[in-house]
Amino acid sequence: MSQYWTDIVNKLDPYIPGEQPQDQQYVKLNTNENPYPPSAKAIQAIDSYKKDKLKLYPDPESTLLREALAFRFNLQKENIFVGNGSDEVLAHSFQAFFKQQKNLLFPDLSYSFYPVYCGLYEIESTTIPLNENFTINSADYNIDNGGIIIPNPNAPTSILMPLSDIEKICRESSSVVIIDEAYIDFGGETAIPLTKKYDNLLVIQTFSKSRSMAGLRLGYAVGHAALIDGLNRIKNSFNSYPVDSLAQVAAVASIKDEPYFQQSCQKIIQTRKKATEDLQKLGFTVLPSAANFIFVTHQTRGAQQLYAELKQAGVLVRYFNKPRIDNYLRITIGTDEEMQTLISTLHGLLT
Amino acid sequence: MSQYWTDIVNKLDPYIPGEQPQDQQYVKLNTNENPYPPSAKAIQAIDSYKKDKLKLYPDPESTLLREALAFRFNLQKENIFVGNGSDEVLAHSFQAFFKQQKNLLFPDLSYSFYPVYCGLYEIESTTIPLNENFTINSADYNIDNGGIIIPNPNAPTSILMPLSDIEKICRESSSVVIIDEAYIDFGGETAIPLTKKYDNLLVIQTFSKSRSMAGLRLGYAVGHAALIDGLNRIKNSFNSYPVDSLAQVAAVASIKDEPYFQQSCQKIIQTRKKATEDLQKLGFTVLPSAANFIFVTHQTRGAQQLYAELKQAGVLVRYFNKPRIDNYLRITIGTDEEMQTLISTLHGLLT
Repeated sequence: MSQYWTDIVNKLDPYIPGEQPQDQQYVKLNTNENPYPPSAKAIQAIDSYKKDKLKLYPDPESTLLREALAFRFNLQKENIFVGNGSDEVLAHSFQAFFKQQKNLLFPDLSYSFYPVYCGLYEIESTTIPLNENFTINSADYNIDNGGIIIPNPNAPTSILMPLSDIEKICRESSSVVIIDEAYIDFGGETAIPLTKKYDNLLVIQTFSKSRSMAGLRLGYAVGHAALIDGLNRIKNSFNSYPVDSLAQVAAVASIKDEPYFQQSCQKIIQTRKKATEDLQKLGFTVLPSAANFIFVTHQTRGAQQLYAELKQAGVLVRYFNKPRIDNYLRITIGTDEEMQTLISTLHGLLT
Repeated sequence: MSQYWTDIVNKLDPYIPGEQPQDQQYVKLNTNENPYPPSAKAIQAIDSYKKDKLKLYPDPESTLLREALAFRFNLQKENIFVGNGSDEVLAHSFQAFFKQQKNLLFPDLSYSFYPVYCGLYEIESTTIPLNENFTINSADYNIDNGGIIIPNPNAPTSILMPLSDIEKICRESSSVVIIDEAYIDFGGETAIPLTKKYDNLLVIQTFSKSRSMAGLRLGYAVGHAALIDGLNRIKNSFNSYPVDSLAQVAAVASIKDEPYFQQSCQKIIQTRKKATEDLQKLGFTVLPSAANFIFVTHQTRGAQQLYAELKQAGVLVRYFNKPRIDNYLRITIGTDEEMQTLISTLHGLLT
């Protein structure tokens, strides 16, 4: 508290990212980072960039990057907005579209940054409960609203919603629908093609997960040019140059390296399959995942205790002390070796 | 306009950065970039960073960078906030401190992003006219207010305000005073030591000008821990990881290379002195500058016409079509060679 803070600052309940303890080396399966490095071509692009040019401002429009993304998705660059990580893109989107007379809708269990953005921009919201099995019932969103945002696959549940349900929600809503596809490349089908049909649909993706570039901060939104124009008006009233020069060249190179992208996503999917089977053998229920993490609960051992015991043993996973999911662990898919360490550690703890 | 935009987006009047035309090679003296490269040590830090680690999120707290800045300014890291360029730091500051019952005050001629931030966060403001000679009268700010922000040196005028005047404003104000020191290293004295005495003073600086790192996007705020805490609450409700990993290591290396920093600032100051004399000989009035740019007007030739003629001849400067300054040009200090090109081009145009 400070006399100098605005009311908003006083009322905020900021987001808390996954812990990054420095006290020992952990097998780090708690922040959904990719265990594989970025494309060698992205690294090459950074290495060969003439660093003297860093004295100049970056391209404020990120033109080459938007063109590369547009080409990949068979759209125009006017359909693409890029920002300093998808969290920034989400923040701008909340301010650009969701401060309405009617309430914003999102699932009661989803990305815990959404209610924080609502606090930051004084947006009223209503949370829609997931079904008992943690799936989303699209019909629940067919109510009066000032906007809808849904992660697909959902986090922390990892469960994918069918594209037909997303289309239904877009068709029935008269406000903006955002599909937050941070994890879509690990087994889902993107809603981006639907943006050609629905001018109220905005799809947000990130370079932090499937492209292994969390350290460079890059995210983007795809949608009708009028939605992108709205985001640009916010961005140009906040920070003219959100994406730095090295991130721009690395991102373009990553986009152009489709084989590596496909290969590393497939590797995660294979490892997820194996880890799921191994965990089931240890008595875990594993929700069907289309993400680079799994959401698991054990038939006898409590999640909070397991989280602490795993941390003690050098394996970090994520635990949320929240109603309905307080007996679940969210576990990032690492390398095969990292998952083997997890499994053998759990084996020791459980038997 | 779009039916999907919020009222704020509809009402926004976004900032327009200096033009970056791609049609030909210009001598580019329009966006106050530094003509010299970043410190070789900063470039080395990027080159030697193990790029595989870019798969991991950056340190969300930018701890090493905040420690390096704290050490340089003889403060604690709790007194330092870093962001994705000083524009982001400014934006967060407006939201954290300036949305108050009373109006924010800033000079009628200053950084043209300030009124844009006011639009973005619905902050009411009052502009205080500069004196006839473009200096700031500190007594004018001793009125009821919800905050004060002043660039020092001011932009686009380039004129420095004495530290004693800043101290007077801090002492007399019961709200937050921000001194925006983007250009302070080119001949001014920073107000940072005053932050130990005045808990309502926040000083904002950037790596984009004196440290030649505009392409990496880095800015910071210095002040009492309670002000920094307020900024952190905003940042952690907007984007947990605003500063990427490469920018963090490069910035630390830049801060530690004090000799290069001093040397490149001195070079700009020398070039500014020479350019000022040369322009005076050509009939220009040059305001006394403590920045890496000068603000000039010609005794007979109109500024708008000169701007267009210079652009035609391949030299870009900045022209603002605004009352009181519509007969002035803002000219960035480039290398000696670039300034010589400017002078000889002007010589050709004027004689």
